[in-house]
Amino acid sequence: MKKLINDPNLVVDDMLQGIAYAHPEYLRKLDNYDVLVRKDSPIKGKVALVSGGGSGHEPAHGGYVGKGMLDAAVAGAVFTSPTPDQVYEAAKAVDSGEGVLLIIKNYSGDIMNFEMAKEMAEMEGIKVDTVVVNDDVAVENSTYTAGRRGIAGTVLVHKIAGAKAETGASLEEVKNTAEKVIANVRSMGMALTSCIVPAAGKPNFTLAEDEMEIGMGIHGEPGTHKEKLITADKVATQLVDKILADMKLNSNEEVAVMINGLAATPHMELYIINKKVSELLNEKGIKVYKTFVGEYMTSLEMAGCSVTLLKLDQELKELLDAPADTPAFKVI
Amino acid sequence: MKKLINDPNLVVDDMLQGIAYAHPEYLRKLDNYDVLVRKDSPIKGKVALVSGGGSGHEPAHGGYVGKGMLDAAVAGAVFTSPTPDQVYEAAKAVDSGEGVLLIIKNYSGDIMNFEMAKEMAEMEGIKVDTVVVNDDVAVENSTYTAGRRGIAGTVLVHKIAGAKAETGASLEEVKNTAEKVIANVRSMGMALTSCIVPAAGKPNFTLAEDEMEIGMGIHGEPGTHKEKLITADKVATQLVDKILADMKLNSNEEVAVMINGLAATPHMELYIINKKVSELLNEKGIKVYKTFVGEYMTSLEMAGCSVTLLKLDQELKELLDAPADTPAFKVI
Repeated sequence: MKKLINDPNLVVDDMLQGIAYAHPEYLRKLDNYDVLVRKDSPIKGKVALVSGGGSGHEPAHGGYVGKGMLDAAVAGAVFTSPTPDQVYEAAKAVDSGEGVLLIIKNYSGDIMNFEMAKEMAEMEGIKVDTVVVNDDVAVENSTYTAGRRGIAGTVLVHKIAGAKAETGASLEEVKNTAEKVIANVRSMGMALTSCIVPAAGKPNFTLAEDEMEIGMGIHGEPGTHKEKLITADKVATQLVDKILADMKLNSNEEVAVMINGLAATPHMELYIINKKVSELLNEKGIKVYKTFVGEYMTSLEMAGCSVTLLKLDQELKELLDAPADTPAFKVI
Repeated sequence: MKKLINDPNLVVDDMLQGIAYAHPEYLRKLDNYDVLVRKDSPIKGKVALVSGGGSGHEPAHGGYVGKGMLDAAVAGAVFTSPTPDQVYEAAKAVDSGEGVLLIIKNYSGDIMNFEMAKEMAEMEGIKVDTVVVNDDVAVENSTYTAGRRGIAGTVLVHKIAGAKAETGASLEEVKNTAEKVIANVRSMGMALTSCIVPAAGKPNFTLAEDEMEIGMGIHGEPGTHKEKLITADKVATQLVDKILADMKLNSNEEVAVMINGLAATPHMELYIINKKVSELLNEKGIKVYKTFVGEYMTSLEMAGCSVTLLKLDQELKELLDAPADTPAFKVI
C-alpha cells in the first residue's frame, strides 16, 4: 500500500484538518465532530443543505461547502456512513429556522443513519427533509445498496438544489428541485484498477493487467461485467448507451455532461473520453449545454471514470448557471 | 499499460478535441494547430499571454486559457516541447497589437523552440518577450534542463501575470510582474510511482513497492534521493525545509501555498500533506494567505505531489485575488 498518510486510523482526522486549514474563507470544522460547515452558517432566511457519506470520495463532499451549494458536509470513516449524531450536529449547526434538506447517496447505511439524524433533529424542533440520489444505472441492488447506487450525479444535485436554496425558496421547494434533478440525472462508471481502504491495506478487488470492469461502484462494488481492455471510444460508447437506454433523450433535448475521474485517471484521459461522449450525443442530435471534466466524486486511488448526463429544462439550466463559490466547484 | 486512450499516437489530438468540445464558452482550437486560444481572442488593448509545453501535465496548460490567465496554450507531444511554428501560430492568433508574453517552463527544448517562435513572430512585426519559470528547488541541471526545472509554480505565474495583463498593463509591465512571481516562487515534488508515456508503453522509471523518490521532476527526472516510504508529515517536512532553505521567509511574511497532485494521488492525501505544511508554516510564524489544493500540473498517471510556496506582497496578493475564469482555475 503506497499512500501519503500518517496512520491509517487518522486519515479522516488529518484530512479534515487539512481542508479546514486550506479553506478558511469557505468553511470551518465543528469542534469534536467530523463536520465541515459554511463559515458564515447558519445563513439567515435560507434553507440549509447537508450532505456527506463515507470518506474517500474527495472533493465530495467537503469541497462543495460554500455559497450556492452545501451548508455542511459530514465525513464518515473511509467508505463508511457517518453516524446519526454527526449528521444531527451538522443539521443543528446550519439550520437558520428555515429547515434542512439532507442529500443522501443511496447506500443502506447512509439512509439508515441520515434518517435517524432526521428524527433526532425533528425532536429538537428542526424541520428536516431528505432526498436520495440513485443515479448509477449500472446495476440494481448492489453490495451495500437496495436499488441503485448514488454516485457523481450527486454533485449536480448539490449544485442545483443549492442554487435554489439561495433564492430563498422553502424547504419543500428546494426538495422538489432536488427531486427533479434526481429524476433527470443518470451516471455509469468503469474502473481500470482497484482502490485500497487504508485500514484494510489491500485492494478491494482485483483486475488483471489487461482487464477493466464496467459499471463498477465508487466503493469497488461489482459492475455489470469485466472485459479485456478496450479503447476509450468503446468505453464511452458503452457508458452512454447504457445511460440512454435508461433515460430517453430526444433530438434537440439539452444535457449537462460530467466526466468524472475516480482519482488516478489523468485529465488527459478524461478529455479523451469526453471527445467520444460529445460526438455520440451530437450524432443523436442531443445538445450539450455544459460540460464538467475533472475529479468530482472519487474512489480513493482507483483508476477509472464515470459519465453523468443530466437532462435539462429552462429552470435547471438557470440554476446550474447560478453563481457558486466552493473550494471544488465554482460558477462565475 | 492501462490507459483510457484510443491510440498512443492520437492522445494529444483526441484530448485537444475533447477539451474544445468541453469548454466552448472559454476557448477554441486553432485549425491545423495544437493550440487552444481564448474564444474571444485577440482581446483589444490587452497584452496576450501564451504558455505551453509537452502534453501530459493537464490541466496545464489548456485548462488555464480564459479571462485573467492565458490567451493561448500550445500542446506538444507527450513530454515533448511544442515546435516553434505551433508557438508562433499561437502568438499570431492572440496578439492584439499590444504584444505577447511567452511563459516558458525551464526545459532546454522548450526554451529553444519558444525562442525560435519569438524570432518568427518578431519578423512579422509582433512584439514578443519571454519569461522562464524555474521554481523547482530539488536539483540543478537535470535531464532536459540547464538550471532548475519549471513545475507547478508556473500556474501561479499564469494567474498573476494574467491578472496584470487584464489591467491594461504594457508588455514590459506584465513581464516585470511575471518575473517578480518567478523570483518569489519555489516548489518541490516527490513521487510514489512512475508514469508511462503512451507511445513508450513502459514506466519512465521504477520504484520498489516500499520506496518513494524525493525531488522527482514532472517527467520522472531524477530527484535528490530515493528512500523507504515515510509518513505524509515527514514528506511535507522534507519538501518545506528544502524550499525554505532556498527562499528565506521571515515571521509574519505571507505566502500562497499550492499542494499539487501529480495525477494519481487522491485529494484526501493532498489535504493530509496540507495539514502538515500549514502547521510547519504556522510554527515559523509564516502566514498562509491562500491555499490551493488539487491537480494543477500533473505527470500523466504518476502518484505523488509537489508543494509550492509563493512569497507575497500587496501587489501580488491583489493580483492573485483578481477574478479569473478558466476551465481549471477560477477566482471569484
